[in-house]
Amino acid sequence: MILENGQTLLFTGDSITDCNRRRPIAEDWGFGDGYVSQVDSLLSNWYPERLIRIINTGNSGDRVVDLQKRWQTDVLDLKPDWLSIMIGINDVWRYFDRATDPDMVGIERYETTYRKLLEQTRPQLNGLILMTPFYIEENPEEPMRKQMDDYGAVVKNLANDFDAVFVDVQGAYNEYLKYRPTQSLCSDRVHPGQTGHMVIARAFLTAIGFEWNR
Amino acid sequence: MILENGQTLLFTGDSITDCNRRRPIAEDWGFGDGYVSQVDSLLSNWYPERLIRIINTGNSGDRVVDLQKRWQTDVLDLKPDWLSIMIGINDVWRYFDRATDPDMVGIERYETTYRKLLEQTRPQLNGLILMTPFYIEENPEEPMRKQMDDYGAVVKNLANDFDAVFVDVQGAYNEYLKYRPTQSLCSDRVHPGQTGHMVIARAFLTAIGFEWNR
Amino acid sequence: MILENGQTLLFTGDSITDCNRRRPIAEDWGFGDGYVSQVDSLLSNWYPERLIRIINTGNSGDRVVDLQKRWQTDVLDLKPDWLSIMIGINDVWRYFDRATDPDMVGIERYETTYRKLLEQTRPQLNGLILMTPFYIEENPEEPMRKQMDDYGAVVKNLANDFDAVFVDVQGAYNEYLKYRPTQSLCSDRVHPGQTGHMVIARAFLTAIGFEWNR
Amino acid sequence: MILENGQTLLFTGDSITDCNRRRPIAEDWGFGDGYVSQVDSLLSNWYPERLIRIINTGNSGDRVVDLQKRWQTDVLDLKPDWLSIMIGINDVWRYFDRATDPDMVGIERYETTYRKLLEQTRPQLNGLILMTPFYIEENPEEPMRKQMDDYGAVVKNLANDFDAVFVDVQGAYNEYLKYRPTQSLCSDRVHPGQTGHMVIARAFLTAIGFEWNR
Amino acid sequence: MILENGQTLLFTGDSITDCNRRRPIAEDWGFGDGYVSQVDSLLSNWYPERLIRIINTGNSGDRVVDLQKRWQTDVLDLKPDWLSIMIGINDVWRYFDRATDPDMVGIERYETTYRKLLEQTRPQLNGLILMTPFYIEENPEEPMRKQMDDYGAVVKNLANDFDAVFVDVQGAYNEYLKYRPTQSLCSDRVHPGQTGHMVIARAFLTAIGFEWNR
Amino acid sequence: MILENGQTLLFTGDSITDCNRRRPIAEDWGFGDGYVSQVDSLLSNWYPERLIRIINTGNSGDRVVDLQKRWQTDVLDLKPDWLSIMIGINDVWRYFDRATDPDMVGIERYETTYRKLLEQTRPQLNGLILMTPFYIEENPEEPMRKQMDDYGAVVKNLANDFDAVFVDVQGAYNEYLKYRPTQSLCSDRVHPGQTGHMVIARAFLTAIGFEWNR
Amino acid sequence: MILENGQTLLFTGDSITDCNRRRPIAEDWGFGDGYVSQVDSLLSNWYPERLIRIINTGNSGDRVVDLQKRWQTDVLDLKPDWLSIMIGINDVWRYFDRATDPDMVGIERYETTYRKLLEQTRPQLNGLILMTPFYIEENPEEPMRKQMDDYGAVVKNLANDFDAVFVDVQGAYNEYLKYRPTQSLCSDRVHPGQTGHMVIARAFLTAIGFEWNR
Amino acid sequence: MILENGQTLLFTGDSITDCNRRRPIAEDWGFGDGYVSQVDSLLSNWYPERLIRIINTGNSGDRVVDLQKRWQTDVLDLKPDWLSIMIGINDVWRYFDRATDPDMVGIERYETTYRKLLEQTRPQLNGLILMTPFYIEENPEEPMRKQMDDYGAVVKNLANDFDAVFVDVQGAYNEYLKYRPTQSLCSDRVHPGQTGHMVIARAFLTAIGFEWNR
Repeated sequence: MILENGQTLLFTGDSITDCNRRRPIAEDWGFGDGYVSQVDSLLSNWYPERLIRIINTGNSGDRVVDLQKRWQTDVLDLKPDWLSIMIGINDVWRYFDRATDPDMVGIERYETTYRKLLEQTRPQLNGLILMTPFYIEENPEEPMRKQMDDYGAVVKNLANDFDAVFVDVQGAYNEYLKYRPTQSLCSDRVHPGQTGHMVIARAFLTAIGFEWNR
Repeated sequence: MILENGQTLLFTGDSITDCNRRRPIAEDWGFGDGYVSQVDSLLSNWYPERLIRIINTGNSGDRVVDLQKRWQTDVLDLKPDWLSIMIGINDVWRYFDRATDPDMVGIERYETTYRKLLEQTRPQLNGLILMTPFYIEENPEEPMRKQMDDYGAVVKNLANDFDAVFVDVQGAYNEYLKYRPTQSLCSDRVHPGQTGHMVIARAFLTAIGFEWNR
Repeated sequence: MILENGQTLLFTGDSITDCNRRRPIAEDWGFGDGYVSQVDSLLSNWYPERLIRIINTGNSGDRVVDLQKRWQTDVLDLKPDWLSIMIGINDVWRYFDRATDPDMVGIERYETTYRKLLEQTRPQLNGLILMTPFYIEENPEEPMRKQMDDYGAVVKNLANDFDAVFVDVQGAYNEYLKYRPTQSLCSDRVHPGQTGHMVIARAFLTAIGFEWNR
Repeated sequence: MILENGQTLLFTGDSITDCNRRRPIAEDWGFGDGYVSQVDSLLSNWYPERLIRIINTGNSGDRVVDLQKRWQTDVLDLKPDWLSIMIGINDVWRYFDRATDPDMVGIERYETTYRKLLEQTRPQLNGLILMTPFYIEENPEEPMRKQMDDYGAVVKNLANDFDAVFVDVQGAYNEYLKYRPTQSLCSDRVHPGQTGHMVIARAFLTAIGFEWNR
Repeated sequence: MILENGQTLLFTGDSITDCNRRRPIAEDWGFGDGYVSQVDSLLSNWYPERLIRIINTGNSGDRVVDLQKRWQTDVLDLKPDWLSIMIGINDVWRYFDRATDPDMVGIERYETTYRKLLEQTRPQLNGLILMTPFYIEENPEEPMRKQMDDYGAVVKNLANDFDAVFVDVQGAYNEYLKYRPTQSLCSDRVHPGQTGHMVIARAFLTAIGFEWNR
Repeated sequence: MILENGQTLLFTGDSITDCNRRRPIAEDWGFGDGYVSQVDSLLSNWYPERLIRIINTGNSGDRVVDLQKRWQTDVLDLKPDWLSIMIGINDVWRYFDRATDPDMVGIERYETTYRKLLEQTRPQLNGLILMTPFYIEENPEEPMRKQMDDYGAVVKNLANDFDAVFVDVQGAYNEYLKYRPTQSLCSDRVHPGQTGHMVIARAFLTAIGFEWNR
Repeated sequence: MILENGQTLLFTGDSITDCNRRRPIAEDWGFGDGYVSQVDSLLSNWYPERLIRIINTGNSGDRVVDLQKRWQTDVLDLKPDWLSIMIGINDVWRYFDRATDPDMVGIERYETTYRKLLEQTRPQLNGLILMTPFYIEENPEEPMRKQMDDYGAVVKNLANDFDAVFVDVQGAYNEYLKYRPTQSLCSDRVHPGQTGHMVIARAFLTAIGFEWNR
Repeated sequence: MILENGQTLLFTGDSITDCNRRRPIAEDWGFGDGYVSQVDSLLSNWYPERLIRIINTGNSGDRVVDLQKRWQTDVLDLKPDWLSIMIGINDVWRYFDRATDPDMVGIERYETTYRKLLEQTRPQLNGLILMTPFYIEENPEEPMRKQMDDYGAVVKNLANDFDAVFVDVQGAYNEYLKYRPTQSLCSDRVHPGQTGHMVIARAFLTAIGFEWNR
């Protein structure tokens, strides 16, 4: 498992990361009731000998352009060793639920903005972890799932370009959906309960070398 | 338009009909913030010379078997001239969001129970209006949409057997989805806002002969 | 119907327009529970192929002099294609419910202020829609109705002078009151429920060429 | 002033009497914030040497038929020396705001029910005070005012038949409306604030021989 | 009655005047539930032909030194024709309930401060009304009553020096206490309910020439 | 100190004993924020080696006749070793704050009722503690204080007749009032804060032989 | 892993099991925010092909004698295939936080009562899982930890006698406490957050043969 | 007893001192529900002839470094005669409950910071009272108790160096724990109820020469 004793791991992103975390910065405790809290619980239980400091600055509703506005205070100033980002769901969603909004984040703006943040940040990090945005929909032809996959492909490229651990969250959900329907996780295909967050937590931990059989 | 001055029109069903209506019975006012209230507003505006008494006994979460338990107090005792029913969404949904529930309403149980209610009630009515349950999903192969269509077909048969006005709500949504995505109406494909309720209200009114150009 | 795909329509005014809309600006969604929301629902259903961006900046209690104070941020900065205004009810009402208030908006101050706003704004608009203020009172000799009619006549003149679509809301209510009493819409003759707001929505839409039989 | 030291005066009626009084019975204190409380304050100040026990059992929304249902517990069981009744506003109002309600209290049902209550109660009273229902509307031809006047005439007859002190509340409001508009008292012409309640309190007290210049 | 049509009457003072009035300034309406509201109701009923504009800027807990801090905004800027002041209860009370407070307002500081306010204000007024502070205690030897009487004597002198209408509120309570115990008005001898506020309202109105038998 | 390890001490009475205690019975914990809680804290600190079980069944507003109604469940069924009673404040107070209430508890009814309760209970007790009701008023001629003293004298007699520890709470307050005014404890002379409750706790403990210098 | 597709697993116990679960019975969903919910999430993720129906009837504050009172409705009537019990914390705790409570559950009463429940239930179960009560305290000589270990030993014996899967929760916490202090899990050593509940969930799952490396 | 009539005593510290005191400064009243309020009650009762002004500026969660930030406004500006400080619990606790926090207050930083505050303040005081932080844990080898004792020893030294009254709060708790378990005072060993606060109040008062047998 790649996280060492004494290191700091910062999670940022949108509502999936936020989950009612403590404000203004959730440091040391108050991580919300989503995958960040689950990752913390699992790390503490499997690796109690390593103290990992966790910070959560996810913010509900954020798109990559909103992340950019608070990047200085919510990422750079906190000087994490490891940075994990999951962003893009709202960038895509706005095309579908508020099509009249004149300020859309198309795939190119998404990539450009995201890349700029990473260029600015990668040098000061021990390591970077990039997670795909997702839509809990089985059918890859469904329009919002399709567009989300395109944004996910951008993340994969960025992970490659910036030497990041890549977490294929959409792929993890796809696997789960082979056995159970999307409605079993939540009704809106975006905001799952504990079981759906565990899909993310498990994918994240496995990607960073978590030894489940420890 | 088939409703006459002085007649009573009772709506019953699940959360789509309920929409925070007044308790225990929404008579004369307090119809909630869904299609029932819209139908009332449109009827009053286009036909102010006809006083139509509206009653709403929709109840969130109900399946046809729950409707059956309160049929005496919530339908028969109220002696409506016209009865409009929309039920079945939850009967289908439980297969997808709570698959461990041991008490499912399969399509046969759905039809049998529904038919029993109609046999008991049709003779005392001036007229009956049956609305299909729906799932705001474009793809007819999506599993929950597919099963919903099957239950909708049952409703169509029942409408035929009991000489009812048939309102194809699923069809009306399908038409809307040709132009705009499901997420524009709501995120869970079941509980729309005002625009999505207007799809139902418009389909309902058109089916009962509403003269829009009056 | 005069609104084209991709255009923006801004509603502003007092509590009738406000209806608990989203703050600070209701853009794309959160239009409140009055006629603005109804207009949006009806437009979306009858013209799903046209995406009309709606903005609501109505504010409860406002008179034309209050509108003036927030005109820059709440109208001009938003650069709408179409602007719809309904103002004047509170300008009149204060004469009747708070006669001791030393800062009244008499009919001349009303017209002068209103005209100044329109002169400032008309050039940058595709089109303008002016709605009369109203008092849901059948008797044209009732003092507050009488004064409201005078202010409504000012609006009619302004509509003429500025080449605006004119919506005679008072006239629409007068028609309705031939069939049903004012108390059926609300008790204070100013703040109606859904049915009374539909009077406004219908008058508005008909005035802009809505094809109801589409 | 006709009330003697040590006597009990019971007020009953609808929301005008209720005004958020204490439940279940407002005895000795907790009279609500309407005319009952004002009468108590004025009596105590002008006649501190007479202890008058006041009881309030007004109930919001009540019509004479609702009063009848709780007559035993809310009037007879309390054995007042003096009984003051104001009822009828809602009996009339329902014709205007909920015309579809099938259970109306027409003027004959109103008189018959009212008379029955008085026959049952008058013998055990020291004295009876009957107050007209009212509608704070200047124009006697306005439909709801007109109908209210008819019900008020019934009360006048009953006062005569049962040897009661008659309080012409409508008349008192008519006098006030010669100077100030109805909107200065309240917007719905039924539920006034402190000033409008003082119209009732003054009329009541003057009718029972209150010596204002004491 | 000395108030003329069209004049403004400003009340200021402590919690007895405040009574949950509207903030920041209670102009035209929202006068709280104390004697100010009662005065307004009685004036409107007995003199409906005179429109008196009432303002209330009483503030709970205030002593004369607190009044001084907000005198510019809460009195002078409002330019009343008539000014009514009742202050001093808390100046005295602090000696009894918070004897450790190092910042007391002794009788000389009380008079000096009060006089300064009046000198600054009297010239711009039509008329001035000064009301004594009070303690609803029968026994003139009770220490807090005794001290309150001393402060009341200061007010009487000030009324004389500044040609003000003098309202002996303590005297009015003394009269009432001949008939009923202090506990009948309230338990803390300071904050009465409606009946106790009517003592003040009656004394105030009688002092300004109110014709009760009008 | 007369309480032994393992014994149960039950307090009952009115709001002074209640102080928001746990419902329905405050056993072992949840004693409210008055003298009962203070007695518990002081006993536990000075005598940690003795476990005294405390129960509180005081009830706000109770008079001796209300205590009687719940005597079986709130005293007898709980089988205390020691019983402490403080009752009578409300019996007296009602004469002063609600003189119109027809159901007064005069001094004879007070004594008779109280005596009946003690006769019924004394035999099953290890010991009885009777506390006087009180009124935090310095002047023994003040009417409510005077009447309270009379009821307190009844308690003293009862203590004598039933071999009870007698706690002169009024006397303890009288002593305190030599140094500080009544308003320093509370404004209504009945419901003190922590300091005023400590007067009771100290008097109680001293009466039962508490060794303060332990 | 011993749970098969289609089986029902019922958890019962005290606040550790409860964790704000749905009332009256948490069936299919609403399992609270403790270890029961974590077990459900982990099972669903690692074994999505097996649908396990979970029920939670834990109740805060319960001791084994409270469990006994609701055993029929909360366990037997629900006919689970597997039953998991964790009880005893409150049985021990009451000796320490409410020593005056006369109704203690000593170790013999604990064992007898527990055994009776198991005798009554074991025959109708597929399998039984018994979890030790725990106290998150490192020092085995600490009095409450010591007593808890004694009750835990009883559970171990019962597990043996009734052929149950035994989960040594105290042992799992002991292991964790080798690395981190008790205060890192919670302050009261009884009610942990997510990390501390994961200690239980992991121990439970490992005991039933969960394949973590799946 | 060392406090003289007319002197001011300021308490500051963390949550133990705070206990929901009045904000921003609790002067004269509103001392919260902890030992500060108890000290006030006991002083007032035993020494009513001495008026001691009490101020409380304790703040929940504070460590000595937080105290430092608000020292000017919350201590120096208030110019007390006597200053009582209890700080250190959170300085220690953070090592145990949030070990990942990078900003710890080790024992040297604790002493240095504390000493600086005292140097700055001692000259302007009549007298200083230093109370040890505490952990309500019987076993002196328990890690958090052990570390707390070390910080307490620092306080003892400081008391010596600055000629302060020293209050050994930990010692007082140790004495209590000989008789009753820690859980009888509270579950988290830090925030006791009334009984546990009385341990502090008694130790404080005894240390300043309180004559309990007065």
